[in-house]
Amino acid sequence: MQSPRHLVSIDDLSLDEIRSLFEHADHFAADPRGFADTCRGMITASLFYEASTRTRLSFESAMLRLGGGILTAAEMRTSSASKGESLADTVRVVGGGYADAIVLRHSSEGAAQLASEFSPVPVINAGDGAHEHPTQTLCDLYNLHVERGHIDGLEVVLAGDLKYSRTVHSFAYALARFNANIICVPQPGFEMPKYVLQRLSDEFGVEPLRADVRKLGDLAGSSDAVYLTPQKPHQLSLFTDLSDWQVQSVDAVYMTRPQTERFGEGDLSDTQYMRLEKRSMDADSLRDAVVMHPLPRRDEIDSDIDNDPRSIYFKQAARGVPIRMALLATLLGKIQLAGKPPKVQRQVWPVVAGSNPCPNPSCISRTEPRHVTPKFTLRSRTPLVAHCAYCSRELVFRFVGCSTSKHYHAPDSRELQKVLPDHLVFLPDEGSAQALAYSKAHA
Amino acid sequence: MQSPRHLVSIDDLSLDEIRSLFEHADHFAADPRGFADTCRGMITASLFYEASTRTRLSFESAMLRLGGGILTAAEMRTSSASKGESLADTVRVVGGGYADAIVLRHSSEGAAQLASEFSPVPVINAGDGAHEHPTQTLCDLYNLHVERGHIDGLEVVLAGDLKYSRTVHSFAYALARFNANIICVPQPGFEMPKYVLQRLSDEFGVEPLRADVRKLGDLAGSSDAVYLTPQKPHQLSLFTDLSDWQVQSVDAVYMTRPQTERFGEGDLSDTQYMRLEKRSMDADSLRDAVVMHPLPRRDEIDSDIDNDPRSIYFKQAARGVPIRMALLATLLGKIQLAGKPPKVQRQVWPVVAGSNPCPNPSCISRTEPRHVTPKFTLRSRTPLVAHCAYCSRELVFRFVGCSTSKHYHAPDSRELQKVLPDHLVFLPDEGSAQALAYSKAHA
Amino acid sequence: MQSPRHLVSIDDLSLDEIRSLFEHADHFAADPRGFADTCRGMITASLFYEASTRTRLSFESAMLRLGGGILTAAEMRTSSASKGESLADTVRVVGGGYADAIVLRHSSEGAAQLASEFSPVPVINAGDGAHEHPTQTLCDLYNLHVERGHIDGLEVVLAGDLKYSRTVHSFAYALARFNANIICVPQPGFEMPKYVLQRLSDEFGVEPLRADVRKLGDLAGSSDAVYLTPQKPHQLSLFTDLSDWQVQSVDAVYMTRPQTERFGEGDLSDTQYMRLEKRSMDADSLRDAVVMHPLPRRDEIDSDIDNDPRSIYFKQAARGVPIRMALLATLLGKIQLAGKPPKVQRQVWPVVAGSNPCPNPSCISRTEPRHVTPKFTLRSRTPLVAHCAYCSRELVFRFVGCSTSKHYHAPDSRELQKVLPDHLVFLPDEGSAQALAYSKAHA
Repeated sequence: MQSPRHLVSIDDLSLDEIRSLFEHADHFAADPRGFADTCRGMITASLFYEASTRTRLSFESAMLRLGGGILTAAEMRTSSASKGESLADTVRVVGGGYADAIVLRHSSEGAAQLASEFSPVPVINAGDGAHEHPTQTLCDLYNLHVERGHIDGLEVVLAGDLKYSRTVHSFAYALARFNANIICVPQPGFEMPKYVLQRLSDEFGVEPLRADVRKLGDLAGSSDAVYLTPQKPHQLSLFTDLSDWQVQSVDAVYMTRPQTERFGEGDLSDTQYMRLEKRSMDADSLRDAVVMHPLPRRDEIDSDIDNDPRSIYFKQAARGVPIRMALLATLLGKIQLAGKPPKVQRQVWPVVAGSNPCPNPSCISRTEPRHVTPKFTLRSRTPLVAHCAYCSRELVFRFVGCSTSKHYHAPDSRELQKVLPDHLVFLPDEGSAQALAYSKAHA
Repeated sequence: MQSPRHLVSIDDLSLDEIRSLFEHADHFAADPRGFADTCRGMITASLFYEASTRTRLSFESAMLRLGGGILTAAEMRTSSASKGESLADTVRVVGGGYADAIVLRHSSEGAAQLASEFSPVPVINAGDGAHEHPTQTLCDLYNLHVERGHIDGLEVVLAGDLKYSRTVHSFAYALARFNANIICVPQPGFEMPKYVLQRLSDEFGVEPLRADVRKLGDLAGSSDAVYLTPQKPHQLSLFTDLSDWQVQSVDAVYMTRPQTERFGEGDLSDTQYMRLEKRSMDADSLRDAVVMHPLPRRDEIDSDIDNDPRSIYFKQAARGVPIRMALLATLLGKIQLAGKPPKVQRQVWPVVAGSNPCPNPSCISRTEPRHVTPKFTLRSRTPLVAHCAYCSRELVFRFVGCSTSKHYHAPDSRELQKVLPDHLVFLPDEGSAQALAYSKAHA
Repeated sequence: MQSPRHLVSIDDLSLDEIRSLFEHADHFAADPRGFADTCRGMITASLFYEASTRTRLSFESAMLRLGGGILTAAEMRTSSASKGESLADTVRVVGGGYADAIVLRHSSEGAAQLASEFSPVPVINAGDGAHEHPTQTLCDLYNLHVERGHIDGLEVVLAGDLKYSRTVHSFAYALARFNANIICVPQPGFEMPKYVLQRLSDEFGVEPLRADVRKLGDLAGSSDAVYLTPQKPHQLSLFTDLSDWQVQSVDAVYMTRPQTERFGEGDLSDTQYMRLEKRSMDADSLRDAVVMHPLPRRDEIDSDIDNDPRSIYFKQAARGVPIRMALLATLLGKIQLAGKPPKVQRQVWPVVAGSNPCPNPSCISRTEPRHVTPKFTLRSRTPLVAHCAYCSRELVFRFVGCSTSKHYHAPDSRELQKVLPDHLVFLPDEGSAQALAYSKAHA
């Protein structure tokens, strides 16, 4: 049996495929009730280990619009899971005969990756903890496509909680991939984390510039804005002398709510959070900007702009249905995307010995009691840098062993280049090395 | 975009329209599986902020019988709401693209009215706290129509908890509107409230008479019965000398359960409640009476009459499906009702200043933290009497201000007739008037 | 109205009917998406008074594959039930017009029997407490049919918790009925209960032999195995001299999880439980054995055999869909089974006086507050042995009265043979006899 295609990460789709999804979504949106035979006889199962009614209803609406059937398990946490069943077993059963695709929501990072390793049918990640939510990103991109006709070169403001919002990080990577420019306008104290900036730079060549945001007027507030541009270096060099990039005209403002559920001590209270109001939108640079929000909103967008034609956040949510229709129809084999899948498939290896080197306590490799083997991806060989294959967090270790030679090395040792990835063992300290009977390499 | 038609209150439908719904329901009931293409491709969403499985399943069955799809959110209280989303936002999202109609159940009075102000698709009130439940009333009326062929002039006993039962109040208004007569047989201490009698008199010209209920036999028990008749005054005058209206023959007995969840201290215990038994139905006057109950029942109807052909309460529930099919097909634009909509549309104004004058703590204008402006309707200009536009409760205030003149008046002041409704401000006392910088009018 | 056909117990189906269901299931399995018009326009309602997501999804998938609609009440316990509605009323309403069949899951034994007495539409027992779960048994049998082509004469190992597992008891009765042989390999301390062995002997003539399980190798472990064979006595006599029956070749190993939720004090901890591993399957006698498990599993089957072609537990779950399709299509009148229904219908009588003689505290006759009359079946007249008609538990009483003579007798009295079953009264002691004004018979 050929392994089915999944959507665990937005990176599982190439740019051409995403553009093709947009085209199909356009067709679905033009006649939402005209495709009620597309997936007739097929079934999706919503397996939601945490409640997310909006996301669930959006997927289920998409499937119903395609004429398919839906199975709903809105409260997985309190049902099978309580009998101690592993996620691997659940998806093998549900995907084995009950449903033709699984829409999975889980509170642990990497859950969708794990599910995709075992499921006989396509798994769609509908949010795995703080990790990924690729259909939200697809929906956000699709909205830019509908409103602007293209994404390349757009100027997009990301505003609010840029620190804890999973949505905004994924959106930033995707914008960079599509060659759009980003103006970060964070709530002070909630700046974009370094590891996000690092990945933007490493993977997409994005350069941060200090931004002059006076033209954003009220919106910028006291924020220390940053301009992120994936332009090629030789283009950037034209501005080398500019310490500030002047924001002239914005295409979209993407506002996010404070992720108070993830706030730590010392983080601000809800009421001090920035607020987009009628007068904020008076700024010249925002004349043609659409206002987006992944919803639910609280008070960060004032209702006084709900009727402003630039406010598209309700349309934005509505467009989640046609883009999910396009995705479901694709994964269920009912439409064929133009464009090829991503060329580079990431390589994953299991951790063959020692304890789980993933430091993330809510990674599925830690929260799932059964049928999970820690796995990793390699980012660099010298020094050896590896990430958890589930939650993408960088692994923590002081030494690296080889399971055949039983020797261990410092991560920057050149000897490690000779060790096959299948033989790498991550050791937190010398004690654990000795416990596994590894000895120090004399190199 | 034209505003869609909603069903917030039974008053949103004219008598002719209700009769037309009955005719359509008759067709659906005659062949429940013969209309599976009527709403093909359309979707309803059940947004239930409190559990009511029977009501939900009845609507969902109706939609499935019409060939439509259903989205279910049976536990809204514990999902999106917990992320602080407003009802207004939720219905804009769900109605914006997920579903073609919203079936809303909520614990706050006025929730359906609020939802209808924001939803781009029809909202059906499936119960808003103690306020309205119009499809229950439609179902009750439809049962009389099926069993008796007409409603006009019927003699209907309302028995049990006439104080707290929302269902029985709505049914009483509707019976009066259809020109039926009502015999109130309350559990002692649970008489029909004055405000209900007042509305019956004000809106439908219903006159209460002391009733001679000896012919009801056992059913009447120790109850102090009241006869409510919407007959025209000149007809009533024929009986002016009669202190008691003698009940001869009853068409229907509508029994209600004790609403113990709303009982206050001092209200009776469950076990003392009246009970309809086999022998109760031996009374001559009840020979042809059908026994109705909105269900669920507890002990107020003994199971020894479950098999009596006059007991129609299970049929009554079953008929909720065809009448809801008729309603859904209407609001989704699939059938056209004979008859015109109600002529008088009630006028609603926002409260422009001051605190919320609605005294009802469970009104949606108080329980909903976002996107709600208190609104009111006017019942009388002199003295000024206003009701909350959401929960219909009479507003509480000692003075009324004018937002342009900044003067305030006593509610019975003739000056108030000159103030436009858009400028009315309801003031609980002089202190609040002063706080808003209003001064006493010299009139 | 003719009473519909229900599936309360696996005994409600004759062997011929079960074989016919298998044939239909084979057709459905061969083309799962080719029957989407079979039940078009029909609706099933999942009424789940306790969560069982897998079972629910399996039924709902089956109905969707047949083109029908599904109503879901996954949390009945917390909804209508909380308003005090009886199960009898709920099924009369849901079966009265909402749905064309009811799939019922309940925590009380006998709930499905009760529901079937009141429901106007077919009731399918999807598990009633520790009592029955006939579609699980059907699914298990169907798997043997698919894997082996027949059931008669198969050698089936039942392993693990044979004491508390409802599934394994039902499966054992069914195997005996189909004339298969059973090798019990219990976790020590969790042997098959005597009442199960008794019923196997009484109803199916099954004889237990001490089994020589050395050929089972690792699987047998320290278990004291028993061989159960429904062979005719004259065949058995051939082996009379053999104290041990030697197990040669096994067709299926049916492993069960420890039912820890029913463990009492002194029962072992989860971790001491037996475990089926790769090496366990090396035994010669297991070369062709399929490994089955009703799922969910915990650790009793090691994941190292998940990919062994003999491990069919995920296929086994998947096959629950086509067999349930066959059952639903049958009960909804869409297919006609070859073969006649069971000849003997069990006779049931109500308990006409005295307290409920059923000793089972979780029997529906005890947990359901309304609309239930204790009922019994007779197993023997002298001595008088009776079982609860709901939960099948043997009734507890010291004397038996006659409701017409007002006399009471010892259970082994020959006088009782003259008492009509409708007049039997079960008396726990003399005190209760006197309280009911019964006097001792002088016989």
